[in-house]
Amino acid sequence: MLDSLFRPKSVAVIGASTKEFHIGNRVIRNLVDFGFKGPIYPINPKADEIRGIKAYKSIMDVPEDGIDVVHMVIPGKFVPQAVEDCGKKGVKNIIINSGGFAEVGPEGEAIQNDFLERAKKYGIRIFGPNCQGIINSDPDIRAYCNFTFTKPEPGQISITALSGGVAEVIHQAFSQMGVGTRIYASNGNACDITIPEIVRYLGDDEGTRVVVLYVEGLRDAATFMEVAKEVAAKKPVLAMKAGRTEVGAKAASSHTGGLARVDIATELIFRKAGILTFRDEGQLCQAAAAFASQPIPKGNRVGIITNTGGPAVIGTDVFGEAGLEIPPLSENAVKALKEKLFPEAAVSNPTDILATGTGEHYRAAMEVMMDEEQIDSIFINFVTPFFVDTEAIATEIVAVNQQKRKPIVCNLMTDPGQWTETVRILKEGGVPCFAFPSDAARALTAMVQYDEIRSRDIGEPAVFDDVDQAKAQGIFEKAKGREVLSATDVYDILSAYRIPVAGWRMAAHAEEAVTAAGEIGFPVVVKADAESIVHKSDMGGVAVNLADGDAVRAVVEDMEKKLNADDLKFFIQKYMPGGKEIIVGAKAEPGLGHLIMFGLGGIYVEVLKDVVFNLTPVTRFEAEEMLASIKTAAILDGVRGEKGVHQAGLVEIIQRLSQLISDLPGIQEMDLNPVIAYEDQVFVVDARIAV
Amino acid sequence: MLDSLFRPKSVAVIGASTKEFHIGNRVIRNLVDFGFKGPIYPINPKADEIRGIKAYKSIMDVPEDGIDVVHMVIPGKFVPQAVEDCGKKGVKNIIINSGGFAEVGPEGEAIQNDFLERAKKYGIRIFGPNCQGIINSDPDIRAYCNFTFTKPEPGQISITALSGGVAEVIHQAFSQMGVGTRIYASNGNACDITIPEIVRYLGDDEGTRVVVLYVEGLRDAATFMEVAKEVAAKKPVLAMKAGRTEVGAKAASSHTGGLARVDIATELIFRKAGILTFRDEGQLCQAAAAFASQPIPKGNRVGIITNTGGPAVIGTDVFGEAGLEIPPLSENAVKALKEKLFPEAAVSNPTDILATGTGEHYRAAMEVMMDEEQIDSIFINFVTPFFVDTEAIATEIVAVNQQKRKPIVCNLMTDPGQWTETVRILKEGGVPCFAFPSDAARALTAMVQYDEIRSRDIGEPAVFDDVDQAKAQGIFEKAKGREVLSATDVYDILSAYRIPVAGWRMAAHAEEAVTAAGEIGFPVVVKADAESIVHKSDMGGVAVNLADGDAVRAVVEDMEKKLNADDLKFFIQKYMPGGKEIIVGAKAEPGLGHLIMFGLGGIYVEVLKDVVFNLTPVTRFEAEEMLASIKTAAILDGVRGEKGVHQAGLVEIIQRLSQLISDLPGIQEMDLNPVIAYEDQVFVVDARIAV
Repeated sequence: MLDSLFRPKSVAVIGASTKEFHIGNRVIRNLVDFGFKGPIYPINPKADEIRGIKAYKSIMDVPEDGIDVVHMVIPGKFVPQAVEDCGKKGVKNIIINSGGFAEVGPEGEAIQNDFLERAKKYGIRIFGPNCQGIINSDPDIRAYCNFTFTKPEPGQISITALSGGVAEVIHQAFSQMGVGTRIYASNGNACDITIPEIVRYLGDDEGTRVVVLYVEGLRDAATFMEVAKEVAAKKPVLAMKAGRTEVGAKAASSHTGGLARVDIATELIFRKAGILTFRDEGQLCQAAAAFASQPIPKGNRVGIITNTGGPAVIGTDVFGEAGLEIPPLSENAVKALKEKLFPEAAVSNPTDILATGTGEHYRAAMEVMMDEEQIDSIFINFVTPFFVDTEAIATEIVAVNQQKRKPIVCNLMTDPGQWTETVRILKEGGVPCFAFPSDAARALTAMVQYDEIRSRDIGEPAVFDDVDQAKAQGIFEKAKGREVLSATDVYDILSAYRIPVAGWRMAAHAEEAVTAAGEIGFPVVVKADAESIVHKSDMGGVAVNLADGDAVRAVVEDMEKKLNADDLKFFIQKYMPGGKEIIVGAKAEPGLGHLIMFGLGGIYVEVLKDVVFNLTPVTRFEAEEMLASIKTAAILDGVRGEKGVHQAGLVEIIQRLSQLISDLPGIQEMDLNPVIAYEDQVFVVDARIAV
Repeated sequence: MLDSLFRPKSVAVIGASTKEFHIGNRVIRNLVDFGFKGPIYPINPKADEIRGIKAYKSIMDVPEDGIDVVHMVIPGKFVPQAVEDCGKKGVKNIIINSGGFAEVGPEGEAIQNDFLERAKKYGIRIFGPNCQGIINSDPDIRAYCNFTFTKPEPGQISITALSGGVAEVIHQAFSQMGVGTRIYASNGNACDITIPEIVRYLGDDEGTRVVVLYVEGLRDAATFMEVAKEVAAKKPVLAMKAGRTEVGAKAASSHTGGLARVDIATELIFRKAGILTFRDEGQLCQAAAAFASQPIPKGNRVGIITNTGGPAVIGTDVFGEAGLEIPPLSENAVKALKEKLFPEAAVSNPTDILATGTGEHYRAAMEVMMDEEQIDSIFINFVTPFFVDTEAIATEIVAVNQQKRKPIVCNLMTDPGQWTETVRILKEGGVPCFAFPSDAARALTAMVQYDEIRSRDIGEPAVFDDVDQAKAQGIFEKAKGREVLSATDVYDILSAYRIPVAGWRMAAHAEEAVTAAGEIGFPVVVKADAESIVHKSDMGGVAVNLADGDAVRAVVEDMEKKLNADDLKFFIQKYMPGGKEIIVGAKAEPGLGHLIMFGLGGIYVEVLKDVVFNLTPVTRFEAEEMLASIKTAAILDGVRGEKGVHQAGLVEIIQRLSQLISDLPGIQEMDLNPVIAYEDQVFVVDARIAV
């Protein structure tokens, strides 16, 4: 538990400084200014007091044992000894603000390892090094163990990130928006206390209603996944992963010292864990502000109330593009509104109460939409004309908001310098207000998307008990040393997992090939198979659509002449014309199982890159989602008068592949390419396994 | 010229009120507060003075003739007479703030037509009615002829929109960003002075550097296009069209009284006119702020300077996604930076000068990037740690900014309440600052996109002089009364415009059909043709791949039996197997010529909706752009070992179709579907013209 870190009763600062512009001074100033509830112990060998607080020559001189948090703002080389001292003094946590450790190279890394070992010996937890620190705005704590500048109001959003710069951007944004924060944690090198640990703590923290997370890569993806699932089940986790583009990843890896890498897995992890993913930090902050005060909508149907037309159109565009609905009002609702609004008001959805509309009009429209069964949330546009009592409007909006029946967002169009009281009423009344209609609409959209993620039950991964794991394992073990498994091995493994394969036989020479073809049934394909032959097609090692024994014999004899390999054998397979080409693949993701890929083959994958990914284990629900989420999903359903393909078969192949690859984690890459899908059956006709 | 409207020397207010919360009072207050440079004449039959200014009983009593601007804030029914009075008094412009006209129904529309007729008689221009009015912040004018609340600082961005709500959102956003504005014009019903007229005026206004435009639809698209082209050639025009989605268009049409409609044409007009299009009003405002102070970049290569890592990664992602480049630095640049920055600084692109970096470090990095040939613009991340002299940094950034060599945007991460002086230096120094790295990066991206639009020379539309316009016109005239032209007519028109058509003949009966097929060459297609037969395929009126005369005879005789039509004829055409199916289409856009559509046929259009549009006339450059901008453009180039198709032929078909449809504007819809494209030739094999 990180309680002693995030709820410290006392804080010492090793490296406390009398100099105003030194971090060892600023940390003390921040603690004092923020109203820290416990004692502060500046440690400085030369000063008697710092910022008016009694200073100690050494941590050993401090009258208290078992201090919760010690800051270290001293050069790296002094840190190991200081940690040792802290250990003797029973210190629980050390926030190392100083840099000069793993981020600067091997020498720094050695020091980092040194102090970490000492800390572990004493059971001290290390936050950082090379970090900003933590903040807890809980009125009982008021811990500003951090040298940055944003002084938050108490709130319900907690922020964590390795990058101090981005954490500060987010924190400052909340401050500018007038939204409070709860806990802030930016842990730099994160050599001991990790992001997953912090996220778990925030999940347990009752004062945290929303967790905001920024990452550039995950170090321990498996642990992250486990923690994120657990926390996301309890409260909204909103996250952003930067370094998504190739250039972005390059920029990330240069500033984090190679911690980040190009990956598509992080956003898949977010999705699988139930985390709401953002690709814009501004939109993330705006959504968080809505989550912090509003209930989660129970559906995607929005009611719009406005006192000016254009901004409602913009909001409607945002909803329309995101697939939200703006349902018509019921007859009863229309009737009620006609009685209560101006005769010229637009009594529909959007409801335009007109610029002359009053607080009572807003109230009436809101109450009606709150009562409408087919409306799940309310989007308010509120411009503040000087000729209406905008404070009365704000008061009525707040009154309905505080019923907490359905979420409300407000696009507030005002000059906050003139309409100070109106702004204050809305803010103190917990109404999330935005200065652009698109921003307000997107914040609401994020809440709807979260509802969808939360309501989504992906189920448990299937466990097929008709598979022969031992056999597959045996084949796999025997093939050790090869880079790519032989065709026989590949097909035997597929068969062991009951992944349907077009009928096949191996043959050593022409006569065996002819017999095999006869058993399988013509037409057939012949492929040369030898460890030395990787690019079969290029070398003339593939012949398709062979109609009879003579054709097979001629082809095999020809290949025997052309391909000079001692271990040459022939793979004879049923030729499957027609059907749709599908690709299913898997690729190991270190520390995280495998990525599974699905898509239509040929032009669709080559030109349109129309493939989707998920992480093992893939459940049936997820496999179905994969099929449905390619851009060309309609082709699977059947277009232009064609029948659709056997989707249940594809879903089963994905699930069986997921099980196979989980049982044989040594597989680096596996391609079923193509799988040929017909109306009523599916067959793998070529496959490859790389170890 | 609208000079007397936007640069009024005197303003009268008919309907001036002594009541604080009346528009007729607020307009006067706004004029006074804003420091209007001319006399103000309140008109009120009962008051002697309003807000301390002498009032007149009637406009006729005002001592000045030829007043530039008269506000009318009186009930609609009194407006026509008041306009008549203004006419007698030589008034030049009337801003009618009152509502109750066309927007409320036929009765109001009649009043609107009435006063408009009177205004025309006297040569008075009407702004509005049902509008906010105008603002001009020019220090010589200071005209706040408007009842809204945003008091702008003088600036170089001008705003125009029919929607007052959205205009106010944009205006207020600039105010909050500390960005000044020049002219503001929100003209409601726009019964006389139109948006294009205003845009032309802003184009001519020397004080306007950037034009910001919001529309929900265009009333007179042709005029808009003409004006927009003219203005966009002079200065950046940034525009947003709302009501893009179906629900959004519905919302727009309900509040504008049916002015808006679902269209894809507006954004095409923007593009063709050289207007930079936005789909988010916040991004539009942020971009405008950058355009207002920065030179336009000469390319897409960005240099990044930062003093904190994470936000640079976010910026890099935005650039990467938009296709901008982050080129490496030259050897010389690296050398220069190594000499001037801290040893731990990251001397690359992004350049990380570290949080401890000073003003000199920023200056050095900026100068180096300004000198780098392969860098066109600079993205600065600037966090304000308390331990560096951030005012010095701001001063150095401003110094380089004022050289105006390359555009600069700055993601400023600070608490503006604490770092007031740093913020002030940057703002007064004309550095566009943003609070999120993504926002800053997108603003810069918009400038790069504008450079691309501006540099794009679409050329003049080709005029093919080998076409037989008279013949096509003749056929078209004769076919009047039909909804869909006959196949003969369609193919004769195509031939007249030398659009290549697969060889064809008409035949009246089986023997003629056999002869025709022999002339064309087998295999052939036979299609039944009669005015009554619209869905040929469904009725068994199409047979393909007929290999010889017997097959043709059998098919024709069979069709004669099945299809009972007096005017039944047979269309015999060369059967064209293989090749790629292409769709080219045209559709009339009222008041705007035609939309031309291009795409790959079959699954690509049906499932992927992978089609692109442009407006006639389409130049060769634009036709080539159309081919290149479908998602599946690679298929035209050739994929999976296939050869590409004859793209020049497709480009020519688009251009010839553009000419045809411009010559025959009565054509409502025309489809060339499919065009079959081979490696070296293209042929239309089916076509339809609807009148």
